[in-house]
Amino acid sequence: MLTTQLIERKRDGGRLDPDEWRALIGAYVAGDVPDYQMAAMLMAVFLRGLDGGETAALTESMLASGAQLSLAHLGVARVDKHSTGGVGDKTSLILAPLVASLGVAVPMISGRGLGHTGGTLDKLDAIPGMRSDLTLGQARAQLERIGCALMGQTREIAPADRRLYGLRDATATIDAVPLIASSIMSKKLAEDLTGLVVDIKLGSGSFLRDLDQAHALADTMTALGAAHGCTVVALFTAMDRPLGRAVGNALEVEEAIHSLHGEGPPDLMEVTYALGAEMLQVGGVARDDNDARRQMQGAISSGAAARKFQEVIEAQGGNASVVDDPAVLPQAGACELFEAPRRGFVTRVEPRTIGRALIALGGGRVRPDDHVDPAVGFVITAKPGDRVTRGEPIATVFASDDAGIELGRAALRTAIEIGDQPVDALPLIVPGSRPRLATS
Amino acid sequence: MLTTQLIERKRDGGRLDPDEWRALIGAYVAGDVPDYQMAAMLMAVFLRGLDGGETAALTESMLASGAQLSLAHLGVARVDKHSTGGVGDKTSLILAPLVASLGVAVPMISGRGLGHTGGTLDKLDAIPGMRSDLTLGQARAQLERIGCALMGQTREIAPADRRLYGLRDATATIDAVPLIASSIMSKKLAEDLTGLVVDIKLGSGSFLRDLDQAHALADTMTALGAAHGCTVVALFTAMDRPLGRAVGNALEVEEAIHSLHGEGPPDLMEVTYALGAEMLQVGGVARDDNDARRQMQGAISSGAAARKFQEVIEAQGGNASVVDDPAVLPQAGACELFEAPRRGFVTRVEPRTIGRALIALGGGRVRPDDHVDPAVGFVITAKPGDRVTRGEPIATVFASDDAGIELGRAALRTAIEIGDQPVDALPLIVPGSRPRLATS
Repeated sequence: MLTTQLIERKRDGGRLDPDEWRALIGAYVAGDVPDYQMAAMLMAVFLRGLDGGETAALTESMLASGAQLSLAHLGVARVDKHSTGGVGDKTSLILAPLVASLGVAVPMISGRGLGHTGGTLDKLDAIPGMRSDLTLGQARAQLERIGCALMGQTREIAPADRRLYGLRDATATIDAVPLIASSIMSKKLAEDLTGLVVDIKLGSGSFLRDLDQAHALADTMTALGAAHGCTVVALFTAMDRPLGRAVGNALEVEEAIHSLHGEGPPDLMEVTYALGAEMLQVGGVARDDNDARRQMQGAISSGAAARKFQEVIEAQGGNASVVDDPAVLPQAGACELFEAPRRGFVTRVEPRTIGRALIALGGGRVRPDDHVDPAVGFVITAKPGDRVTRGEPIATVFASDDAGIELGRAALRTAIEIGDQPVDALPLIVPGSRPRLATS
Repeated sequence: MLTTQLIERKRDGGRLDPDEWRALIGAYVAGDVPDYQMAAMLMAVFLRGLDGGETAALTESMLASGAQLSLAHLGVARVDKHSTGGVGDKTSLILAPLVASLGVAVPMISGRGLGHTGGTLDKLDAIPGMRSDLTLGQARAQLERIGCALMGQTREIAPADRRLYGLRDATATIDAVPLIASSIMSKKLAEDLTGLVVDIKLGSGSFLRDLDQAHALADTMTALGAAHGCTVVALFTAMDRPLGRAVGNALEVEEAIHSLHGEGPPDLMEVTYALGAEMLQVGGVARDDNDARRQMQGAISSGAAARKFQEVIEAQGGNASVVDDPAVLPQAGACELFEAPRRGFVTRVEPRTIGRALIALGGGRVRPDDHVDPAVGFVITAKPGDRVTRGEPIATVFASDDAGIELGRAALRTAIEIGDQPVDALPLIVPGSRPRLATS
């Protein structure tokens, strides 16, 4: 294999055969293809694209670079949920135990915060003692025992993807559908899933540019899943404002726990139920949407979902009493209410501003090894469309000190716009986001 | 400067400011921007292009990364010639002493063989004792004394270009006009030239794709020269067959010496005179084409051009007696005539096949540190259009042993086609190649 010839062909708009992708990724992982050649290839792929066969071959190659779970012996469906990234999105923390409590196994590999968006692993870290660095062997044993495991991408899983992702991050080649889809699916397919529900975020807080890109991502992931007997369903949901009220790791865990107790904010529960209904139907334990919602409401009101979350926390070394008493979570040193500066209608709560402010407060990362303060963040009760009066409390800032409080208040002044007329926000479940069923 | 943001902008078809190019190239040379980020940028440049201002800024940045000659004190014009690369092209060896003998200083920075094409430095190496690794100080002193220096790109000259060229070679990003033009000009402008004649090769043996690319390269180099008071003239010449008869380092030196004695093959002399006439006019020592040709023929018949070559060889440590007795050049261990396999017209002498065969004989490089055998090569007397009879000698193979002879004969059988009808070859000086004069 002459690497420059492969780069040249892709540069000129040609395609690589599956064998060539396998050889290239194999040589890259072995250290025989240097980063600079792969960087040139990634930029050529970014600008020239990959066809379906190439995307599949790239995904296979990354999947094959690591170990994979084998879960068929569980005898139940294995369904995960993936989000393209949002602000205040704690649905994974609710859905994993909720769906697992209804008889579908949930092997969930999550990530850290990225850019302005939060990450499930950072949220789990807020729970005292909780570990998410499970080996595949530990995850398998836990799934056999309690049907749910919440973990990160260990060194065992798709190491080629981990290296390529770092290179893409440094070379402005993240934002290309075939590269996004193959990166996600190389990890998800390692979970031996029968189904995957993808929450594709739309709006100003999303990484995706537009509905066309969202459709392309959904189609590409669906095709990749189909080749592995994994049915992929995509929903498009609103990320033009934060989801729920809490933004910040411990605050979001607390909101997720309230939700498992039946006290979640309406927008968060609407998205959670929409995604969960797809998970249960793909998992074959619910007939239709109504049946799925009835089952989920039952698992919440009976306490089964909350108990499943306790089991998962306990299995992963965490303090399970958090589910009964969220006060065991880290508490911020300072907090202060934020009042509406005028009367009118909330016209905008900008998620990027809030997400970046959380990082500035110390609750997210700029570099991979930055320390994260789990206690800081925001609780924002105002939603676009709400009518507010001057001086009415519409948010709370949680920070480590007074300087953080000032910083958080400044961010809220920028993020929350109030006007004279109500304006339309995106519907929570964006129309046109028909579930896409694999043909396999 | 955030490198990923610069890459992203170029990726999306935007432009970088001159300051941004300076900062990027400076950081790259300093080791603060890694090869993989520059590789992604180069691929983005390859596919998105550079505008005139960006190409100028890139060239300036590479020029400024190293030292430059200062030659205004010579009191004469300084004119160099550059070729985009061919097979059998030994015009530099003839033109440098010829033009210098007529009162124009020739500071010539040349390269090694590249791909199937030869390099002037490799040819100079065939002369016993000859050194081309002059420092800028040595080149300057030699130019003051004898008006001509033949040298390579030392570590002093445009180190950013040297590193970028190596990276482009490994990432399939060589063949883009702004990158080719800026690479050439960053070295040529370091020679403090008042004029540059560019020989842009066309035809199957050329690196250039087509006449459009040739025009774009000529235009880009002309604009880059104009900004530095260097008048650039481009001629388009034929490289659909080797130039002259000899292909191989020592054989080409010998043919150049014969040419300086007035015994060069007609095609080689036509191209040499066409390029030399431009050099003398740009250098201000000839009124017009006829005047220039008269002067060149005079310098050859008087022996002044040959004596100047002797001076240059002597100044650079070489055995200057080679100019009177080419037999001091390395001689091949074996040689054998090659006869026309049939009667008819020569329809093709494919330069790429000949150039690659020279490498296979050991007379060129696959890797930069390969040893080169200066003695091997071909003398091909047949030209496209010639009428030949069966069994007529039309070439000679020079090799180190019998295996090489067989290899060379096989290459000639492939490269030289003989048909029933004469076919049109490119004219030596391709019509439409109007000299392009800088407006400065």
